[in-house]
Amino acid sequence: MLIVHKYGGTSVGTLERIESVAARIAKAKRQGNDIVVVVSAMSGETNKLIDYAMHFSKTPAKREMDMLLSSGERVTAALLAIALQEMGIDAIGMTGRQAGIKTDEHHTFARISSIDPTAMQSELQKGRVVIVAGFQGISEGGEVTTLGRGGSDLSAVAIAGALNADACEIYSDVDGVYTTDPRIEPKAKKMDFISYDEMLELASLGAKVLQSRSVELAKKLGVKIVAKSSFSDAEGTIIAKESEEMEEVLVSGIALDQNQARVTMRGVADRPGIAAEIFTALADEQINVDMIIQNASSDGTTNLGFTVPASELERARKVIAQFEHDFKGVDFNQNICKVSVVGVGMKSHSGVAAKAFTTMAKNNINIEMISTSEIKISMVIDQKYGELAVRTLHEAYELDR
Amino acid sequence: MLIVHKYGGTSVGTLERIESVAARIAKAKRQGNDIVVVVSAMSGETNKLIDYAMHFSKTPAKREMDMLLSSGERVTAALLAIALQEMGIDAIGMTGRQAGIKTDEHHTFARISSIDPTAMQSELQKGRVVIVAGFQGISEGGEVTTLGRGGSDLSAVAIAGALNADACEIYSDVDGVYTTDPRIEPKAKKMDFISYDEMLELASLGAKVLQSRSVELAKKLGVKIVAKSSFSDAEGTIIAKESEEMEEVLVSGIALDQNQARVTMRGVADRPGIAAEIFTALADEQINVDMIIQNASSDGTTNLGFTVPASELERARKVIAQFEHDFKGVDFNQNICKVSVVGVGMKSHSGVAAKAFTTMAKNNINIEMISTSEIKISMVIDQKYGELAVRTLHEAYELDR
Repeated sequence: MLIVHKYGGTSVGTLERIESVAARIAKAKRQGNDIVVVVSAMSGETNKLIDYAMHFSKTPAKREMDMLLSSGERVTAALLAIALQEMGIDAIGMTGRQAGIKTDEHHTFARISSIDPTAMQSELQKGRVVIVAGFQGISEGGEVTTLGRGGSDLSAVAIAGALNADACEIYSDVDGVYTTDPRIEPKAKKMDFISYDEMLELASLGAKVLQSRSVELAKKLGVKIVAKSSFSDAEGTIIAKESEEMEEVLVSGIALDQNQARVTMRGVADRPGIAAEIFTALADEQINVDMIIQNASSDGTTNLGFTVPASELERARKVIAQFEHDFKGVDFNQNICKVSVVGVGMKSHSGVAAKAFTTMAKNNINIEMISTSEIKISMVIDQKYGELAVRTLHEAYELDR
Repeated sequence: MLIVHKYGGTSVGTLERIESVAARIAKAKRQGNDIVVVVSAMSGETNKLIDYAMHFSKTPAKREMDMLLSSGERVTAALLAIALQEMGIDAIGMTGRQAGIKTDEHHTFARISSIDPTAMQSELQKGRVVIVAGFQGISEGGEVTTLGRGGSDLSAVAIAGALNADACEIYSDVDGVYTTDPRIEPKAKKMDFISYDEMLELASLGAKVLQSRSVELAKKLGVKIVAKSSFSDAEGTIIAKESEEMEEVLVSGIALDQNQARVTMRGVADRPGIAAEIFTALADEQINVDMIIQNASSDGTTNLGFTVPASELERARKVIAQFEHDFKGVDFNQNICKVSVVGVGMKSHSGVAAKAFTTMAKNNINIEMISTSEIKISMVIDQKYGELAVRTLHEAYELDR
């Protein structure tokens, strides 16, 4: 089997951790697999370098930031190669450029445009473990680029796709994807399997294991991801295309997002295009509006409500101020949270949403906003009820079984 | 003027130091010069990375060491570019590869094979300060290579040559080349000017300002070096081709090397080729033999004496043991030192050596070995007289005037 391993910052955070990762790779190699490893910078290194740059400038040039930040992954790749060689495993470290990772020219958030796997394949054929510095590539013009947050996951998935690998094992400090956050509901269970679409919903709702961008790419390339812990030998969670038996599962997980704020604009003039203008202005400021509710009022005005990430609330406030002549009043509420029920089974089963609403009612939790997709129901509620909602929904859908 | 600046590890050892270096560059740029800057890693960084690698292996693979160690200079180059941009100076950071520095394939001690200055020239034409990560290049096969100790000096000199720069200013924590070590002789004076050949002799004799490799390359390419301090505005020392007025100077400096050991083989069989065999065997083990003395004895045997760096004495001992049937006895003496008088004036003036010997005799210092070149007299003496010899020679040649 050809397997891509990816190790994040905490997994390679110390020399001892790198040694432990090397032992894990050596074992997989000795079992007869071909292995390509993608590594992040040692935890803390990237932030240290960002702090260095911020010492000089609040807005350092992105091109130079890429030259700066791409160094951390190279260090880890070289050290891991040295550690493996010492264990008698033939290994070679590669920069993004050497591994054939081409990107566009967008410094600090480049997109992978293509991967030329020739060099990696040639080293694999020599029986070597190939260790690639993640998070980085090279543009057409020969510039060093980086892929943004979660970029090493993206490198790993793209490489797995280019090499047609049997799996892409993504190692972190958690041992898989859970039905909900175990810190909130101790009965939360690790899932053996989750579909790309469910994982996408959970990731966008705040589950930290994988970022949406990597899951999207894996779905597009058909790469089977396994989310595992580098600190244990637990089995992990497989993220792949939904299978036949998957359809039996109604709901796979409950997510809680505490970092949302609600904006309610009252008495908005009911003239055509006003909502479009407001949301365009917000989008221009890169503010991510999530849920939107509009109610017509009896006096010919409407109430317009929406949620934004709490960190973007201040910017949203400024944008809305530009429209002050178009509405009567506005409320900003940070004491809310969003609880979501996710599951591919919703597509083909009715009553899933009804059960969520009933559960909330039974617990006297008022639902302020609702939004649904094919495989997700999200509800905005008072922040103080967030954890209670997660626990009761977890039980209602029998996720602890 | 087109000037290459090179800043060593202590000159860029902290963020504050990098800021101070940026201010110096900004000043030179605003005076109307074109500037290319070559930087080392922040002091301590390279040793930290070496320690990391040594944690895993006593003999880490050189290819991976190059991938590891080349990261430090990239960090400095990126940070310095950011600092300059913040000061309103247009600047661009470049890796060795981007600056067009091609080397052979010898990892960790590569030689520069060529420099393609096109990219640097194109950025200079845009009015930018070009900042190059020193110490590194790229091989024909696309591998990252490093140039070994003192490699950033070498990068700077080679770049100055390729760009036909007016000068290569090498900044460190000392403000130039002195007539002797000021810690030994407080009356030591900074030289305004020294020829390549004299600098070569001083460098090989232990003067720390510049390494022989860089001076050799500067001589070959005709690059004018200025050794300066990044901690002061002192003038520095120019290292260039000897000029007409230079000939007036008999002696330019006195050097002391305390890290030598003396080997004396007694009663060596006087058969043809025996000395050649011994020195070939030493060379095969990469032992640097410096001074050699051979005296024929009345009994048909000879005494063979030579010096080696103290750090290589143990290896020399093993080599000599292979010849045990060819000599009667051997002494190893580490309590020696080598004091040298250097000056291009010796070429055309007689009596320089005689004055050295007379000075030693006046102070009752016994000379154990002597070797001379066109511009140097070296004497091996008892280690305890080393500093006395330096001070009296410094006075005898009136170097404090």
